[in-house]
Amino acid sequence: MDSPLAFPVQLQRNTISVLDETKLPLEETYIRVKTLEDALQVLGQMKTRAFGQVLLFFYTCVLTGEIEAVAAAFNKTRPTFDFFSLADTLKGAVQKTSTLQEAAMRIIQGLDEKKKVRMQRLAVILPNDARILTLCNVNGELIYLSEALTEIGKTGAFFVSETRPYLQGARLTLWELRRAHIPAQVFCDNQAAVLMKQGLVNCVVTGSDRSTERGDVINKIGTYALARLAHYFTIPFYVLTQFPQAIDIAEVPIEERPPKEVFMWLEGNGPWPEALYPSFDVIPAEFISGWIDLSGEVRCA
Amino acid sequence: MDSPLAFPVQLQRNTISVLDETKLPLEETYIRVKTLEDALQVLGQMKTRAFGQVLLFFYTCVLTGEIEAVAAAFNKTRPTFDFFSLADTLKGAVQKTSTLQEAAMRIIQGLDEKKKVRMQRLAVILPNDARILTLCNVNGELIYLSEALTEIGKTGAFFVSETRPYLQGARLTLWELRRAHIPAQVFCDNQAAVLMKQGLVNCVVTGSDRSTERGDVINKIGTYALARLAHYFTIPFYVLTQFPQAIDIAEVPIEERPPKEVFMWLEGNGPWPEALYPSFDVIPAEFISGWIDLSGEVRCA
Repeated sequence: MDSPLAFPVQLQRNTISVLDETKLPLEETYIRVKTLEDALQVLGQMKTRAFGQVLLFFYTCVLTGEIEAVAAAFNKTRPTFDFFSLADTLKGAVQKTSTLQEAAMRIIQGLDEKKKVRMQRLAVILPNDARILTLCNVNGELIYLSEALTEIGKTGAFFVSETRPYLQGARLTLWELRRAHIPAQVFCDNQAAVLMKQGLVNCVVTGSDRSTERGDVINKIGTYALARLAHYFTIPFYVLTQFPQAIDIAEVPIEERPPKEVFMWLEGNGPWPEALYPSFDVIPAEFISGWIDLSGEVRCA
Repeated sequence: MDSPLAFPVQLQRNTISVLDETKLPLEETYIRVKTLEDALQVLGQMKTRAFGQVLLFFYTCVLTGEIEAVAAAFNKTRPTFDFFSLADTLKGAVQKTSTLQEAAMRIIQGLDEKKKVRMQRLAVILPNDARILTLCNVNGELIYLSEALTEIGKTGAFFVSETRPYLQGARLTLWELRRAHIPAQVFCDNQAAVLMKQGLVNCVVTGSDRSTERGDVINKIGTYALARLAHYFTIPFYVLTQFPQAIDIAEVPIEERPPKEVFMWLEGNGPWPEALYPSFDVIPAEFISGWIDLSGEVRCA
């Protein structure tokens, strides 16, 4: 069973339909996006993120007929993810097909196939009885991983770090795994070290927002602490990368989100006190055991 | 300005008044406790904890005229904290005074004095420009620390880990520090490694629920990960201990709290999925830089 999060953003004629991830798991509602401004609003409010923001980018290009301007505007709203590379990919594809829409659809279908392939590659590397610690949400890919493990006779269970402050792990990943009847339990981010120490988990799998040819990656806040701890406990730490880039990771800007998001549990009953909210982590290559990129290539340390 | 959390439980004639910490910071309300059963209920629901549970224990003994039975019942409800040692202390004090109430009051006043003294000792050790990472809540002691720093011409600012799932850091510590006009910012537990890496903090101060003569301690879940990370970044890690015991820390039972507490943000809209919730961490002595116990003794690694 595929996850609704595998394709959380869809194009229907002149409207983009965006699964409102901030309402999950309590409500499965969709937002209609008709203009670049609409798109920037759902992006800024994190109504969609990760693969959803990739889809939103492509479809906004189709809707507006623009590529460069959309990339610049998306980058301004969420500076850590590399929308300019997506723009280059889309421009390249346009030259091979007749329309922007055909080009976008071809890329998107290709990405989904590539995700399935890379999960088959990852399944081979993981232990027979894989007890997988993960965080945040990788848009349905863990379901592909679970299917790939089953195909080769391995079992897999997931331990999902809740991923404060937006709780993508607890709200999205736990929800998509459980509705697919895949064993999954959630825990608070500050409990990861104990799970590792007690041997409850035997590998870590995370996504990434940026990665370099050297092997450094940027991912959701919390990933760095997990990598450090996994390294200490000699638990293999695998990262799903996009297309590794020849960049210096230190030059990628780290998005600071609004402090009030940290206080979502106050539900508007502020006043919001000051909070720190760096939203991404940089993880040096030294703490990573393996990189599985979208080309299906597996590189182990 | 003292924190309401410095004495969150008070005895008024035949009623114990308990500050409901689960309602803070939105409401400052008090629960009336008249029987052992009432006391066990507020204890089990974590309406009070840390020093509050010490006060609740002493006052419940006064209220019921029992010591042993109260200790056994409290221990059954919250097994990690050592209520039996409190019982011994109270029994010892009773022999020196006329009534249980006088004995309890003498101990409590003595503890408050000892807390002030140990914070004066800690202030001497901390850096001039102390940027203190802390978690959970140590019942007004950080205000004593801030006053002690000022007295000797040092500055102090606090970086408070929110402490999921009950958010004692965000709800209690941030609240008591800000109402005392002490600089404080909150962050999500999974961001601690970044704060350390970026040099935003230069020391860690935590409480403890149990400690051994060897130097191992038990404290709120999340403390172990902080200790590991601080050790890696060579940031001094100080623990406020009670009275170190000649015990093997591995034999202390670690309380498992109800999984639904992890899903408090669902606000009763469950069904509650399964969650893991070990609520305390064991921190080996190797990762601790200094112990400051209630006798005022400072021991550095």
